[in-house]
Amino acid sequence: MASPAKSFVEVGSGNHFPLENLPYGVFRPSEGGDPRPGVAIGDLVLDLSVIAAAGLFNGPLLSSSTCFSQASLNAFMALGRPAWKEARATLQKLLSVDEPTLRDNAPLRAKAFFPMSEVKMEVPAVIGDYTDFFSSKEHATNTGTIFRGPENALPANWLQIPIAYHGRASSVVISGTDIHRPRGQTTPPTGEKTPGFKPSGLLDFELEMAIFIGPGNELGSPVTVENAADHIFGFVLMNDWSARDIQKWEGVPLGPFLGKNFGTTISPWIVTLEALEPFICEAPVQDPAPLPYLTETKRTSYDIPLQVAIQPEGETKASVVCRSNFKYLYWTVSQQLAHHTINGCNLRSGDLLASGTISGPEPGSLGSFLEQSWAGTKFISLEHGGTRKFIQDGDDVIMSASCQGEGFTVGFGECRGKVLPCKPY
Amino acid sequence: MASPAKSFVEVGSGNHFPLENLPYGVFRPSEGGDPRPGVAIGDLVLDLSVIAAAGLFNGPLLSSSTCFSQASLNAFMALGRPAWKEARATLQKLLSVDEPTLRDNAPLRAKAFFPMSEVKMEVPAVIGDYTDFFSSKEHATNTGTIFRGPENALPANWLQIPIAYHGRASSVVISGTDIHRPRGQTTPPTGEKTPGFKPSGLLDFELEMAIFIGPGNELGSPVTVENAADHIFGFVLMNDWSARDIQKWEGVPLGPFLGKNFGTTISPWIVTLEALEPFICEAPVQDPAPLPYLTETKRTSYDIPLQVAIQPEGETKASVVCRSNFKYLYWTVSQQLAHHTINGCNLRSGDLLASGTISGPEPGSLGSFLEQSWAGTKFISLEHGGTRKFIQDGDDVIMSASCQGEGFTVGFGECRGKVLPCKPY
Ligand SMILES: [Ca+2]
Ligand SMILES: [Ca+2]
Ligand SMILES: [Mg+2]
Ligand SMILES: [Mg+2]
Ligand code: NI
Repeated sequence: MASPAKSFVEVGSGNHFPLENLPYGVFRPSEGGDPRPGVAIGDLVLDLSVIAAAGLFNGPLLSSSTCFSQASLNAFMALGRPAWKEARATLQKLLSVDEPTLRDNAPLRAKAFFPMSEVKMEVPAVIGDYTDFFSSKEHATNTGTIFRGPENALPANWLQIPIAYHGRASSVVISGTDIHRPRGQTTPPTGEKTPGFKPSGLLDFELEMAIFIGPGNELGSPVTVENAADHIFGFVLMNDWSARDIQKWEGVPLGPFLGKNFGTTISPWIVTLEALEPFICEAPVQDPAPLPYLTETKRTSYDIPLQVAIQPEGETKASVVCRSNFKYLYWTVSQQLAHHTINGCNLRSGDLLASGTISGPEPGSLGSFLEQSWAGTKFISLEHGGTRKFIQDGDDVIMSASCQGEGFTVGFGECRGKVLPCKPY
Repeated sequence: MASPAKSFVEVGSGNHFPLENLPYGVFRPSEGGDPRPGVAIGDLVLDLSVIAAAGLFNGPLLSSSTCFSQASLNAFMALGRPAWKEARATLQKLLSVDEPTLRDNAPLRAKAFFPMSEVKMEVPAVIGDYTDFFSSKEHATNTGTIFRGPENALPANWLQIPIAYHGRASSVVISGTDIHRPRGQTTPPTGEKTPGFKPSGLLDFELEMAIFIGPGNELGSPVTVENAADHIFGFVLMNDWSARDIQKWEGVPLGPFLGKNFGTTISPWIVTLEALEPFICEAPVQDPAPLPYLTETKRTSYDIPLQVAIQPEGETKASVVCRSNFKYLYWTVSQQLAHHTINGCNLRSGDLLASGTISGPEPGSLGSFLEQSWAGTKFISLEHGGTRKFIQDGDDVIMSASCQGEGFTVGFGECRGKVLPCKPY
């Protein structure tokens, strides 16, 4: 591999956003102003609306596009991989240490760069539909064992179908948004008929990753597993907050609803497939072989180490409670996409498809407190003191991910959210 | 009640769209042009963008609003009931036989009116999220009996929770859109491990009604059952197409997905609560009493007779296969809305909340073929010849609804869709 690319913007060692990454997001400057697309470089955000207005996206596909003067990335997502590659090449050149155009234009630099610590990140796309998969075999086995016992752990369909359900798009929020503990109905106490009604006592996180859809497909026309990657713009981290007591009582027969739809947090920077290329790895062997429409000639995934930490109210240190990896997932994103559309279902640019909780086979790799506490039957010790079975008020739940390249890091930043007490009602 | 209001637009006896109705939709003129809001009157559509441009929405809430120059009704929906009442009063006056403003302005009339038969109707709102409830006790009991046996017919939570799941917004289509039979996995044949994979053999309709949300609520702030009606813009008919074989194999443990999300058809005209006021009736008594957050001081519903007919390919007559009524629903829309938000989930203007299949206690009132054929164990005879257990290719499924007032009809028009063969893949 070539030696790390160098930008005139300083990028410290271990920084998540070197020239090799260039993830996309949508931000507002601290002094106000409309949301606009940006790209992360080191500790700065480059305002793509300024770069576009300066005529610096001068390739054939983007020179007359208005996609960077929008308040969301949907238009850019819809353009597809050739335009994404052109944008990446333009930005890598513009930001390179050897390229004077932006480097030596102080007035433009002053308009185009913002300190990352001072901008307000926004949900980067208008999410038409959000789908949550259930693609970790370890997670499905663990939750199946907890809820139905070891003999029926894996649902009958699980090895054939990348199972999924539709989640709520309206309550997808950006990292840093506080989450109020939800209130709701819970299973009636033994011998009683009236359900409980209270703030959830079993609030949990789910460590997930999610893709944003690039070009969509027409209603009635499936995307094949081999073409699926062309429809994937990039990845973010996701916390699928889950109220286990509400989820359990409501969930049969139509699946998760109020136990999930009170909030779903995503990280703000969308890391592209191009940036993740150095981290391609083999996907798990599938046995039994899936049906032909789910069969990939080459099964690949990404080696993305993931971490979850909890920082209780008033503590200065976060305690790591989970180390997992995207590569553990049994069903790949291409299989998810092929399955999602096999009945003709149409995806649209900006749609969000989440992986499901990413648990692994290693000790310490369980992606939810439900699994770690085995449904609340045992305590989890926090490294910096205290114990948990589920999330307490004041806990900041911090997910992060980074891939170590040769001399550079491709990271996702953080996906965090603090749990506040249930609001009076 | 006063004698029927009269418009200078001719409205034939039994026409669904007299001056008492004035439902809202979004249409394109046949000669092309952008989608714009309209209102139905008799056999005509009144272009609200033309009326607004002419300055005829001159009340205090709408005179400076741009809501009628949008391609969707979301902005108008967001304004809330006072603005809706103002628009209704303005339109009832403008269209009245005694009011010369529009009646005697031939050039304006020529620009503002379109024959309904010549316009192309569109989905009337950008639907951020679509939720499908399960609020008919008869439907829940029937499907529960079919799938789990009579002893476990009604799920344990059903009498306490207006059960719902999130559906797919992208595939909500307008009446008249053809639906391709979906393809997908089905339960492995007895003794085998490999699932089936084929065009659905058990394609069904579900007779439903759905509300569009007016003003939304903030994430974290529930809507009370008493305030719920302020958030409801109006009603449409809905066919929740369902592939029973796909649904059955995929549905445990996370609920319906590909068995439903290949298409959901709605009728184009949104009938307001104001138009439905004459048809308010009592809602069913609930036993056990629901929890306080679902308790209404006065339980009302709407008496809306509903009908489903099937017109097979090449036939000239449609055979009625179901006569039901909205009033049969056990959970009211206000209860649905209060439940949907009790955990803090945010609704947005333009969201679609469907009732679930509306089956009733009367013979002939079962709102799906699944129930009518009792899971395919018996044939349904069509009045004009032929039998069905499920929908066949070429069948046009036609839902309609109208309420008979004293000397006028408030109708919904039709919600129809023809099933085409599964597309080659
Ligand atoms: Ca999840
Ligand atoms: Ca339904
Ligand atoms: Mg969630
Ligand atoms: Mg449907
Ligand atoms: Ni035909």
